[in-house]
Amino acid sequence: MTETMTLNELIRILNDNEAAELSEYIEEVNAVDIAQLLPELEDEQVWKLCSLLEVENLAKVLEQAEDEQAVRMAESITNDELIEVFSYMQKDDIADLIGEIPDAQRKLLIKQMQVGDRNQVTTLLQYPEDSAGGIMTTAYISLPETMSVAEGMAKIKQTANKTEVIETIYVTNARHQLTGTCNLRQILTAPKNTTLKDIMNENVISVHPEDDQEAVAKLVSRYDLNAIPVINNRKSILGIITVDDVIDVIVEEYNEDILEMAGVSKEESLTTSLVDSIRLRLPWLLINLATAFLASLTVKMFEGTIEQVVALSSTMTIVSGMGGNAGTQTQSILVRQLAQDDISRAKYWKAFWKEILLGIINGGVCGAVTGIIVYMIYGNSFLGIIILIAMIGNLVVAGVSGFAVPVALKKFGADPAVSSSIFVTTATDVLGFFIFLGLAKLFLPLLM
Amino acid sequence: MTETMTLNELIRILNDNEAAELSEYIEEVNAVDIAQLLPELEDEQVWKLCSLLEVENLAKVLEQAEDEQAVRMAESITNDELIEVFSYMQKDDIADLIGEIPDAQRKLLIKQMQVGDRNQVTTLLQYPEDSAGGIMTTAYISLPETMSVAEGMAKIKQTANKTEVIETIYVTNARHQLTGTCNLRQILTAPKNTTLKDIMNENVISVHPEDDQEAVAKLVSRYDLNAIPVINNRKSILGIITVDDVIDVIVEEYNEDILEMAGVSKEESLTTSLVDSIRLRLPWLLINLATAFLASLTVKMFEGTIEQVVALSSTMTIVSGMGGNAGTQTQSILVRQLAQDDISRAKYWKAFWKEILLGIINGGVCGAVTGIIVYMIYGNSFLGIIILIAMIGNLVVAGVSGFAVPVALKKFGADPAVSSSIFVTTATDVLGFFIFLGLAKLFLPLLM
Repeated sequence: MTETMTLNELIRILNDNEAAELSEYIEEVNAVDIAQLLPELEDEQVWKLCSLLEVENLAKVLEQAEDEQAVRMAESITNDELIEVFSYMQKDDIADLIGEIPDAQRKLLIKQMQVGDRNQVTTLLQYPEDSAGGIMTTAYISLPETMSVAEGMAKIKQTANKTEVIETIYVTNARHQLTGTCNLRQILTAPKNTTLKDIMNENVISVHPEDDQEAVAKLVSRYDLNAIPVINNRKSILGIITVDDVIDVIVEEYNEDILEMAGVSKEESLTTSLVDSIRLRLPWLLINLATAFLASLTVKMFEGTIEQVVALSSTMTIVSGMGGNAGTQTQSILVRQLAQDDISRAKYWKAFWKEILLGIINGGVCGAVTGIIVYMIYGNSFLGIIILIAMIGNLVVAGVSGFAVPVALKKFGADPAVSSSIFVTTATDVLGFFIFLGLAKLFLPLLM
Repeated sequence: MTETMTLNELIRILNDNEAAELSEYIEEVNAVDIAQLLPELEDEQVWKLCSLLEVENLAKVLEQAEDEQAVRMAESITNDELIEVFSYMQKDDIADLIGEIPDAQRKLLIKQMQVGDRNQVTTLLQYPEDSAGGIMTTAYISLPETMSVAEGMAKIKQTANKTEVIETIYVTNARHQLTGTCNLRQILTAPKNTTLKDIMNENVISVHPEDDQEAVAKLVSRYDLNAIPVINNRKSILGIITVDDVIDVIVEEYNEDILEMAGVSKEESLTTSLVDSIRLRLPWLLINLATAFLASLTVKMFEGTIEQVVALSSTMTIVSGMGGNAGTQTQSILVRQLAQDDISRAKYWKAFWKEILLGIINGGVCGAVTGIIVYMIYGNSFLGIIILIAMIGNLVVAGVSGFAVPVALKKFGADPAVSSSIFVTTATDVLGFFIFLGLAKLFLPLLM
């Protein structure tokens, strides 16, 4: 039922100084629409936007903006205004923003904050951006286990508007350790004089602040949680991570994987500058150049053979190319399986033998088709038979390397999604040429 | 703080008939751990598990199990038992399970259900699995807008345990149309005699049952929602989709994309049977074979040239291979950008020209390195110069095709993530060979 604001509408509002219309739009719909238009605005328009927005709405847009854009907004208002905006923002969003701001300004801002805020924000700032601590919020409700349901309900009503999650209440003991959680629906339906300890769920799934955000996302997704608490070694609760931040993590990691598989850094987007794109992409191309030379040198070993049967030069690329495709198939399935990691060793072995069989069968079919066509083009049946055998051989190589490379990389602590393809392709290229041209050399008299 | 149950522990519990231990485990921790072990169990062990579990816990494990495993469980108990289990399950989970069961048994089961359940389940069954209707649940709270906050609170307490989401209450008018939502924290803090209409948020982001699940996931993720309502054309609320199901959608689509980019069906996993793997992978290999032949025929056109300068046969693969790598880089960035779709046409054009420049610069660097090495190996400087020019040419081809193919595919309604690579690789292979060998033919006297 909602209409998203377009860039043109926003620019018109800014040009006409329609502060009222802008604030109405944010009240009614969502600050995220405006936050998403920020990259399209000129610096001057961003400045105009900040001056038209009321402080509370400015805070909403800032919370929704990408880091880079949030910094642009922060730079177009004064430090005093920014401090005022902070009073409407969640501490974790403040920490995220402040972490991106130049050192000197950051120190000034932290000095200007209230003591309580300052302590929370500096604590949040010490965790890496992609750790549980880096994505947690400190806006949660925790209550002592000795509290009655009635008292708890009163407390929840009081603090409801300052927290991110009210469906789960965190329960602590006298030593401030997290001992359980209560679901709000349990609190709503339980007799008023029961204590929280009586109704709480004692098995709490939690994480530590230094845990990787990807591990956090896996737990939240596996156990269908609305939020997950972050605790320290003394089991004190430090914060919670909410499900909307977990979705951001999943989407971010997804984009990273897709790009890194293709040798592109997660930092790059369509709007990255030319110089940065070169810096980010050229290294990967040069690494690939080294492996391309490996394949080229393999072919060079057989130049004498190719000189005598020139048809080999055009047909050899079919064998190596098909090996690359088959290898990518196996490798993708392995990478996905390793990311889930829920299969027994016996099943891995069974799957490994299946890949070899698959290489023989798929190689047999593709090789037979290729062999027949090659025979029809060049009129030499031996060339067809050699390409059949080489195709089977190279698709087995594809199955073995597509399987073994990701498993080995994971064992050595490397990310299989990122670096598998270069090894698998090298194997299928080099061995593809070697098997085909080697066979051709062996049976050279039959081919001439 | 939670220990995940291992397969060996579960098997021990089943062998020793430890029903009590099993139910304690499910009470305290989570049915999902047991659901995830199901693929590792033999049929007999699944049967044993079902007989040991109390009906309520059986329902929990069933809700968490993958479709295939849920069917295995359903098959190992009687229809009467299954109907009893259903009374503890959400309607959407029942519909998902029933949708997977063989026709004859499904009809029997639906007949045995209570009228109310039957109507809801058959309604849910009519939506495709990957549509908003297919993933929605009917367990939500909707209240009339004329109701007071106090009455609303009483109603919420009454139904809290039967719904999936209590943080958002859906508000309807006299014609049963969805007119707004109330946040539970608003209801908790508002004066008791205010009506829901007074405090409700009128701008509801909603979807229609036939909407694609991926579009639903995008909305929930963009607006940080806990749940999104599904409405029909008369604006009546049909159900809601909760954030945990949205996470499942995102993870599922992610795995699909990764696999389909590599020419693997989303249906395939490491444990897929040999026959199914052949059926799923061979077609893609055969399509690739056709494009491999295109490249091969391009080389064949220049066999005369290669016969005279055999060094071309080993060096040509470097040019085509590097084009493929560079094309994959550009294509990945485009595919990601198109999935987000938040950039203006002007920025696209700017990025397009950048890709061409990038092709010239990266091609220049890689081509120079290659040219020098080739000169050192073969002692012919003209061969080095030709490979430099061809590399620049093919990396420009890579930039153009890596950019244009995904954009064109999206325009024609195809999924760029799935089918881009085959076109981009064909372009870089065919044109890579053509440019390099064409130049070599043109300057043949200099190379001999």
